[in-house]
Amino acid sequence: MEKLKKYVSVKDEDQFYHQGAVELLVFNFLLILTILTIWLFKNHRFRFLHETGGAMLYGLVMGLMIRYATKASDVDSGTVYECEKLKSGPSTLLINITNQVYEYQYKREISHHNVNGHQGNAMLQKMTFDPSIFFNILLPPIIFHAGYSLKKRHFFRNLGSILTYAFLGTAVSCIVIGLIMYGFVKAMLHIGQLKGWEFHFTDCLFFGSLMSATDPVTVLAIFHELHVDTDLYTLLFGESVLNDAVAIVLTYSISIYSPKENPNVFDAAAFFQSVGNFLGIFAGSFAMGSSYAVVTALISFMHLTKFTKLCEFPMLETGLFFLLSWSAFLSAEAAGLTGIVAVLFCGVTQAHYTYNNLSPDSKMRTKQLFEFMNFLAENVIFCYMGLALFTFQNHIFNPLFIFGAFVAVFVARACNIYPLSFLLNLGRKQKIPRNFQHMMMFSGLRGAIAFALAIRDTESQPKQMMFTTALLIVFFTVWVFGGGTTPMLTWLQIRVGIDPDEDLKAEAANQTASNLDKNTTKTESAWLFRIWYGFDHKYLKPILTHAGPPLTTTLPEWCNPVARLLTSPSAYGDQLKDDGTDYIINSDELTENYESSAHIPGPAQDRTGFTQATGKEDIHEGDLGLGGYKLQLEHTAGQPQMNSLA
Amino acid sequence: MEKLKKYVSVKDEDQFYHQGAVELLVFNFLLILTILTIWLFKNHRFRFLHETGGAMLYGLVMGLMIRYATKASDVDSGTVYECEKLKSGPSTLLINITNQVYEYQYKREISHHNVNGHQGNAMLQKMTFDPSIFFNILLPPIIFHAGYSLKKRHFFRNLGSILTYAFLGTAVSCIVIGLIMYGFVKAMLHIGQLKGWEFHFTDCLFFGSLMSATDPVTVLAIFHELHVDTDLYTLLFGESVLNDAVAIVLTYSISIYSPKENPNVFDAAAFFQSVGNFLGIFAGSFAMGSSYAVVTALISFMHLTKFTKLCEFPMLETGLFFLLSWSAFLSAEAAGLTGIVAVLFCGVTQAHYTYNNLSPDSKMRTKQLFEFMNFLAENVIFCYMGLALFTFQNHIFNPLFIFGAFVAVFVARACNIYPLSFLLNLGRKQKIPRNFQHMMMFSGLRGAIAFALAIRDTESQPKQMMFTTALLIVFFTVWVFGGGTTPMLTWLQIRVGIDPDEDLKAEAANQTASNLDKNTTKTESAWLFRIWYGFDHKYLKPILTHAGPPLTTTLPEWCNPVARLLTSPSAYGDQLKDDGTDYIINSDELTENYESSAHIPGPAQDRTGFTQATGKEDIHEGDLGLGGYKLQLEHTAGQPQMNSLA
Repeated sequence: MEKLKKYVSVKDEDQFYHQGAVELLVFNFLLILTILTIWLFKNHRFRFLHETGGAMLYGLVMGLMIRYATKASDVDSGTVYECEKLKSGPSTLLINITNQVYEYQYKREISHHNVNGHQGNAMLQKMTFDPSIFFNILLPPIIFHAGYSLKKRHFFRNLGSILTYAFLGTAVSCIVIGLIMYGFVKAMLHIGQLKGWEFHFTDCLFFGSLMSATDPVTVLAIFHELHVDTDLYTLLFGESVLNDAVAIVLTYSISIYSPKENPNVFDAAAFFQSVGNFLGIFAGSFAMGSSYAVVTALISFMHLTKFTKLCEFPMLETGLFFLLSWSAFLSAEAAGLTGIVAVLFCGVTQAHYTYNNLSPDSKMRTKQLFEFMNFLAENVIFCYMGLALFTFQNHIFNPLFIFGAFVAVFVARACNIYPLSFLLNLGRKQKIPRNFQHMMMFSGLRGAIAFALAIRDTESQPKQMMFTTALLIVFFTVWVFGGGTTPMLTWLQIRVGIDPDEDLKAEAANQTASNLDKNTTKTESAWLFRIWYGFDHKYLKPILTHAGPPLTTTLPEWCNPVARLLTSPSAYGDQLKDDGTDYIINSDELTENYESSAHIPGPAQDRTGFTQATGKEDIHEGDLGLGGYKLQLEHTAGQPQMNSLA
Repeated sequence: MEKLKKYVSVKDEDQFYHQGAVELLVFNFLLILTILTIWLFKNHRFRFLHETGGAMLYGLVMGLMIRYATKASDVDSGTVYECEKLKSGPSTLLINITNQVYEYQYKREISHHNVNGHQGNAMLQKMTFDPSIFFNILLPPIIFHAGYSLKKRHFFRNLGSILTYAFLGTAVSCIVIGLIMYGFVKAMLHIGQLKGWEFHFTDCLFFGSLMSATDPVTVLAIFHELHVDTDLYTLLFGESVLNDAVAIVLTYSISIYSPKENPNVFDAAAFFQSVGNFLGIFAGSFAMGSSYAVVTALISFMHLTKFTKLCEFPMLETGLFFLLSWSAFLSAEAAGLTGIVAVLFCGVTQAHYTYNNLSPDSKMRTKQLFEFMNFLAENVIFCYMGLALFTFQNHIFNPLFIFGAFVAVFVARACNIYPLSFLLNLGRKQKIPRNFQHMMMFSGLRGAIAFALAIRDTESQPKQMMFTTALLIVFFTVWVFGGGTTPMLTWLQIRVGIDPDEDLKAEAANQTASNLDKNTTKTESAWLFRIWYGFDHKYLKPILTHAGPPLTTTLPEWCNPVARLLTSPSAYGDQLKDDGTDYIINSDELTENYESSAHIPGPAQDRTGFTQATGKEDIHEGDLGLGGYKLQLEHTAGQPQMNSLA
């Protein structure tokens, strides 16, 4: 008998595996549908519904089906049991039920008023997966990819503006949304809604901070496809990438702001502690991310010892690259910092240094790997957002709050873009034109980050109402604004079909006669950036990559022994070449083309020699490598030459 | 006050996330160490410890540290609570502890004697992760990769032998181990060990089936590096790949074998039910996996309608390929079949049909993606095996049982290889020489599958003892046999440094004058295979890929309308070329080389044109594409020509 029972229990366990398989299958099915739809859309050049919007739509339909087509199965689930012996919730609970011990794992704490929501449908419960999956698994690849594919050249040209929008703009947006929502909440309390709720100004600010994370994935994808003006693209891309990091740290800082006494009274000490937290976490995460990238760069740079180069084993190189980048995220999380911020700056630094040391094969492998992970993660998130509207069981729809939030989000975006653009235009030589400002205003979509921040805490009723509202704003902005991007571009007469390389080449050609100073003042007087650039070019690049002048020429003479030790031997020979490299717009491309022609009569028989364009997707990251913005600063030196084969 | 408490709870939750981060970080750290070690070994051409052995060693050390350097933290965990109101274990349990409701999720059922093992260390508990993670996440990419990179040409030449070893050999091995272990168990009961345990012959067979899954990852890696004789490589590789599938289904069939009355008496009905289960599950999984692959092939084949080809969007193509292959696994699991078997045959079929339809870019992307996932998953599994020796808390070390298992495993391997080789040699024209047989005997390592099958059920004491024993056998075989591969090859005088393509080319050259029949009898008289090959070449390939003759020529005349509809227009033009293709040893390579030279003056500016050898790893899968074994059958037709550009 006992034997039989054992087998039954094995079968039960199998049942559990199979359920997990069913849920994953649902997601797979949604993703496959999304991919087929994208294919269809691309065929018809249909740009009113982007893949993210499509994924969300399919998720919505699937959520509807799961909600109303599956029945409640697990009757026990809704009941709360008493346990007098326990003092606190242990992480693992062993319970003796009818003489059989079961192991239960701690999942979360829930409020009394949420207990009813858990009654019934096991399928729904399984579908609403852990917010930690978002933060630990789905978001990191997206953010890393954003950092890794940052168009450095244009990014650094617009650094000042991007930082202003990202830091100042997000703060402005957060405060404006917070203030407007506080007004609405006060009004709601006045007319008798939200009875018995605790809803402080800090809660409104919390909502403000999470709604300040813009996510113009859809808009940027369309921009990219239409080759919209590169400066506009860079401004929006840079802003949204950094703004995510700022919003995440801001939300965390506000959530741990805990005034000693009355939460409605301003507590200066607690406020400054929050500001300190913000700065500390941001700086710490930045340092963590960058240092992991520097370690990767150093390891991949260790070419020149008696060791075989790591780049001769592209699999190991790619693996190491992937693991160290993920470790940046995990270490930051483990240290109580923000992993997302760490992984973003890790990506930026990897692209700046490590990428130059990678073998051509690894360059492609890492790019394709992260591109693929980004693609999958993005679509999973948008599918899940669609699902959440029907599978999340504690929605609180409050029309007034939702209306207030819509108003607040648009007013805040306007207060962010127009005044800051005005201020920036005072300093910029190349003004941000009026139609760019309108387009930036229009591109203030809310997406994955806002959703992830909102779903992270849905315990109290205010938080649930915020989550519902955030979800609706995401739906609205992705569908309406995302779909309206192409008409809007036409209406605002923003030029499309621009080749970013051509753009720069033309600029460079126009300015061949002008000198360095004249050149840099063209966009912004980024003196801080110039100092950093000099330091980076003279010291960091030579230490961490094969590019740049040898350290012996850049360091003072008394450092020569150290310099000789640290400099890559190839740097000496490359000294001339290095200056020339800056002229080559897209040195990667040249290298590859050259190699592909040089390859055919090559002696190595084990090189299969794949040659295939990576398709249109590649333009986007076509210039991760060397050069880029150097063009701006150094185009006076040397003659263009084919030298990237070193 | 409530507010403060809420924030504390948020912080608690963060604490939970951070713990998850720490565990992942430990794994990341182990993998990084492993990669650096592999690099070091590759530099010194050190072949006595393979990467899998290294990963296991690091895991072992880390497990030791976690075990003895961290202290018990969670005192509550070991206590069992009574709950009279519950009748069965619900999937979610809500518990009211000091007026706060906590949600707990069902994890598993545990026996009373295992309760003590759970006392204490939360870190240890977290580290011993769910066996379902093995089956659902880590194993599928490894198995898929094995199927996808099967060397078809040599595989089909040796199909009969491989199937014999895989099916008959595994069954023999399972029964021999079962019988020997039953003898040892009887002896142990006789001398008074295992008091009060239930240990039937089916349990011994269960152990036999799980220990029959050989996993010569290490051996094959070394073979591959040294370019060992291709037939030996193919025999071992084919055997171990199929043998995993057989062992998994066999284990499952035995675990659900439940005789009505006395479990020690042979129950014919239950036995035949088990055999039926085995055949049904195997066939069902095979069908499920193949049909997903056929669907993928059909979608990727939809080139010729008015649609843009899917292969113009390599990202979508890769995504679809990945998702459909994973869906094959998940669907099989959801349907109660064996996902691993499904994903294996899905991989084989994808390589046979879909791979031919993919764009060159997607060919490379999918290969590299699966290669990378395989690399990571394999190293995670071996790290985890090392960890498990110290972190698993219910080990039962029984010297007699362990000794018996070692004896049984080697005797069973001998009973599998030598008699079957003798029988096969009666039929084979090209005999399996004595030294190959010894090498196959020596390569009977146990690895990931045996471990995963053993850890799947560790509830009862016999199962725990089996798990401990399996783990030790894995350690021993991987380290000792894996490390001894190179000396063994030298000692057995097996020739190394063979280029598989050269091998075939030479054969082809020798036999240019001979005819088809003479040719096929060379290896095996695989009449079944010949029938299948004809069907595949005439009907399936033309329907599913761009290769093969047009259907209008292969189908009877009255089918012409249908045939015209199904045939790819390019097939008509290719008719001549197709026959020629069979002469090209490695048509992929030629295509790529040709394209890389043709590419440089090409008109498409958006093609970045990557050209880089994928390094040594690539030889292994260098011939996934067309041709291959066709050479054997069709080399009489046409003249060799460069025609693979169609």
